[in-house]
Amino acid sequence: MAAGKGTRMGGQIDKIFLEVDGAPIIVHTWRRFLSLPSVSKIVLVVRSGMEEEFKRLASVHKLDQKSFSLVVGGAERQDSVWNGLSSVKEEFDLVAIQDGARPCTPVAVIEKAFQIAAQHGAAVLARRVTDTVKESQDGLVVDRTLDRSLLWAVQTPQVFQTYVILRAIAEAIKKGYKLTDDTAACEMIGQKVCLVECPAPNPKATSPDDLPYIEMLLRNERALSL
Amino acid sequence: MAAGKGTRMGGQIDKIFLEVDGAPIIVHTWRRFLSLPSVSKIVLVVRSGMEEEFKRLASVHKLDQKSFSLVVGGAERQDSVWNGLSSVKEEFDLVAIQDGARPCTPVAVIEKAFQIAAQHGAAVLARRVTDTVKESQDGLVVDRTLDRSLLWAVQTPQVFQTYVILRAIAEAIKKGYKLTDDTAACEMIGQKVCLVECPAPNPKATSPDDLPYIEMLLRNERALSL
Repeated sequence: MAAGKGTRMGGQIDKIFLEVDGAPIIVHTWRRFLSLPSVSKIVLVVRSGMEEEFKRLASVHKLDQKSFSLVVGGAERQDSVWNGLSSVKEEFDLVAIQDGARPCTPVAVIEKAFQIAAQHGAAVLARRVTDTVKESQDGLVVDRTLDRSLLWAVQTPQVFQTYVILRAIAEAIKKGYKLTDDTAACEMIGQKVCLVECPAPNPKATSPDDLPYIEMLLRNERALSL
Repeated sequence: MAAGKGTRMGGQIDKIFLEVDGAPIIVHTWRRFLSLPSVSKIVLVVRSGMEEEFKRLASVHKLDQKSFSLVVGGAERQDSVWNGLSSVKEEFDLVAIQDGARPCTPVAVIEKAFQIAAQHGAAVLARRVTDTVKESQDGLVVDRTLDRSLLWAVQTPQVFQTYVILRAIAEAIKKGYKLTDDTAACEMIGQKVCLVECPAPNPKATSPDDLPYIEMLLRNERALSL
């Protein structure tokens, strides 16, 4: 998913094109999926008019070692996901949906999510919620404290048997639902979704404040791999 | 609250003594409360044996412009809070409970929390939850997606009319509850708790990964104030 406008980044430039540790965020994310044995094709869902820029990045950063295709996104995240999925249909057994702005996901955890999705149909990376979370109907007064031990914040990738996610999102579209999260479409059709705990930080770039932290994670990882 | 052991920091040193932007984290937090017109006394709840170190910090960093006292913490957070509160009792109308490891809280938002607590009894800084949060009983399979628009992650300070929080925590102790969050004790006795949205980042140092981000926030703030 590389079609976001990144309106929270406070500028015109898409957040995924901001440079961290020597390359745009999207290049780091792309490289990570290139390195995975489970991945044979990469579909980038992009904003209309940005196709040439992605081709340029692929060439400059040598990202064309595996087949990739560019698909134009839709109005909402769900439309963009649908456009991406429709372009491959059931060509592959499994599909991972990744936020382009999430460049630090550990490859070993992605592989684990592929395995679990192959077995159970749907898997999502998640971390335990560490904050105390309150529920409030009006946003002014606390109604109750939730039991934190039951809560998981989900991340990406979300990995699916392809026919499962195609059916789930088709159903969401038919019912007129707008879901911000792909596993929610699975829950809607009664498809079991497995949690895959991501033990390392897996941040998404949503504001300029996030960039120094993301850069530090990428540098540390590179230092360890040398 | 400055009695945490910081076991997640991967070392022997308490996280609150780690230096960021020229001073230990606890010094930044302490300074922030010194600068507040609403604050006339600061009670530091510390680990047994660390009293001299806090006195030294107060002297080196000139933190003794307002009266402060040192109280030894207990086994659990709730015990530590109780020890701190017991040392002042109802000497002051309002009390703010702050994590020592949370050095970036904007002072304007703390003042707002004091005002709201004076009016309604209890106020807590909070941010809207931006992650998609799932509930899972077994930590393996998702049970449901929560409605994110109702969720708030609470931070500190938590500010109270002193008699309210004394009564709430006394009740929690009597009932044998262990609460990790002071406003939960209020909810238990039916005391309304108001949310005070904190629009700026208000991170707590919980792992070494947090330090570069905290340092950046402190530096940016200092640059703006010069």
